[in-house]
Amino acid sequence: MAKAASSSSSSLSFEPLAIGIDIGGTGTKFGIVDRNGNVLFSSEISTRGHSQVEGFIDELYNHLHTLIEKAGGTGRMRGIGVGAPNGNYYSGTVEYAPNLPWRGIIPLAKLIQNKFQLPTILTNDANAAAIGEMMYGAAKGMKDFIMITLGTGVGSGIVANGKLIYGHDGFAGELGHTIIIPKGRYHEGTGKYGSLESYASATGVKLTAIEMLEKSEEASMLRDTPKERLDSRRVYEAAIAGDKLAKEIFDFTGEILGLALANFVMFSSPEAVILFGGLTKAGDLILKPTRESMENNLIQVFQNKVKILVSHLKESDAAILGASALVWDMKA
Amino acid sequence: MAKAASSSSSSLSFEPLAIGIDIGGTGTKFGIVDRNGNVLFSSEISTRGHSQVEGFIDELYNHLHTLIEKAGGTGRMRGIGVGAPNGNYYSGTVEYAPNLPWRGIIPLAKLIQNKFQLPTILTNDANAAAIGEMMYGAAKGMKDFIMITLGTGVGSGIVANGKLIYGHDGFAGELGHTIIIPKGRYHEGTGKYGSLESYASATGVKLTAIEMLEKSEEASMLRDTPKERLDSRRVYEAAIAGDKLAKEIFDFTGEILGLALANFVMFSSPEAVILFGGLTKAGDLILKPTRESMENNLIQVFQNKVKILVSHLKESDAAILGASALVWDMKA
Repeated sequence: MAKAASSSSSSLSFEPLAIGIDIGGTGTKFGIVDRNGNVLFSSEISTRGHSQVEGFIDELYNHLHTLIEKAGGTGRMRGIGVGAPNGNYYSGTVEYAPNLPWRGIIPLAKLIQNKFQLPTILTNDANAAAIGEMMYGAAKGMKDFIMITLGTGVGSGIVANGKLIYGHDGFAGELGHTIIIPKGRYHEGTGKYGSLESYASATGVKLTAIEMLEKSEEASMLRDTPKERLDSRRVYEAAIAGDKLAKEIFDFTGEILGLALANFVMFSSPEAVILFGGLTKAGDLILKPTRESMENNLIQVFQNKVKILVSHLKESDAAILGASALVWDMKA
Repeated sequence: MAKAASSSSSSLSFEPLAIGIDIGGTGTKFGIVDRNGNVLFSSEISTRGHSQVEGFIDELYNHLHTLIEKAGGTGRMRGIGVGAPNGNYYSGTVEYAPNLPWRGIIPLAKLIQNKFQLPTILTNDANAAAIGEMMYGAAKGMKDFIMITLGTGVGSGIVANGKLIYGHDGFAGELGHTIIIPKGRYHEGTGKYGSLESYASATGVKLTAIEMLEKSEEASMLRDTPKERLDSRRVYEAAIAGDKLAKEIFDFTGEILGLALANFVMFSSPEAVILFGGLTKAGDLILKPTRESMENNLIQVFQNKVKILVSHLKESDAAILGASALVWDMKA
């Protein structure tokens, strides 16, 4: 901002903008954002179309370049913020991400920076979402909160003393991979058993639905849906139509999520836990059992004081907003 | 220090000293410490002798006053630092501590300050230990680590970005109460099931020993020890003498502790976990299964890089050191 104000060059006479890119397990969202958190232009591509990351970045460039031109060209762009699973803030790399198609250590920030010729900063996708909530959303003004994203995977961003916890190596906040049910459900991507993600992700809810339908003899309208199309939206629709088994699926998921949240609360004692993602659309069907289970598992000193809030940012914007927010903190 | 240097008053011509008080579930240790971490005088009383906290503070005052006189009188004391289970740094209170004899909310810092007429600051006992390790011990120079105290209870202090995490209410870091085995062993003090403390505390190891001796038909020299005298020292002695069941007790405890540590690592990604307390005296008998279990439960990105260290501070000094270290940070 200071730079723009003190310069008379025409390319800087416009307010600077930031690019936000959110790489999810399924789709990659990107957009151009102003300092007030308005998403001016945005679009999306599949994350799954390229086995090599270079091909993915080429496709991303082609789509994003069009938006950049519409927004006034590269000269107006202050930089690029990227949120990605297993993204490392310190090194700009994505390392061994179980939910992405690229294996090993990927120098993603550097590859994007070289392609776009713009300064690029990267972090864990859920860390980016947490920054977005802190700047524009439900966590405005909070210094201690935990962001949990319930999507293809379960991600998290932890803020303590007003700062994201990155840990000694930049990888802090992988709460989706904490073990909640020892020797519990197998997780394909990690090879571990009983992680939060194996129950509270989109895949987790689907597996719970399949398991419960198989185990139970109970009538359920979910039996009319082919297995591969069972998801939290279908379960939600069945539950609000009074389907008992559908409600039990949310109760079970909420019980595990609430237990996990209790453990997280006893770690960093946040003012609130902010939930984000598809599963939260089920509202009280998932929130009520989650709250109950959290309170049941907390020791007295933590009871009845931690809020569970649902992000109110537009889902398509929140991830882009969070990633773009990284740019405003970048060193010039 | 600045005060002492700029004054010519005789009572300040000595180096200022700090008082450290560590209130544990069983005993309360206290001592007088110089700025370099030398414990000049120290002693101990039982925590369990008084059902009213005022009686406890009177006894503490009588014992500590003798030490203060020996060290040059109240005028040399910069202040008092107190570590206590469920101690709150912000409010100076101890709230609903399951391992202490006093119920409800106790304004401990205020009571001690009034009795001694010295500025008093209080925190969770394990937070105090973490500060002690950071100033004088195994965590010197670290900015991200987790301290776990394995005593009567299991306490913890979490340091991220070089600062203790206190949370929004001052109660962060109650990792002993996180649920590791859902529906697992009952914890008398909290009424919860399957917490880390119900397995990895002194009481936990004793219960595991009793359970394993009852379940198994195997010969064991531990069968010669009366139940009430089974503790980690006895189990250790049996294990190094080749007792198979004794080794299994440590394996079981290490498996649960390691699982818990994996979850903590995936939260804050520390450089090291520092263990302190009686159980660590068993050395590799407990550390080896703990390390193995931790690595087994970590996702790849965290594997083989987090150290598990044992505190090398003298046990009788460490808690006092940590509590006294709070004083040097106090606002004058």
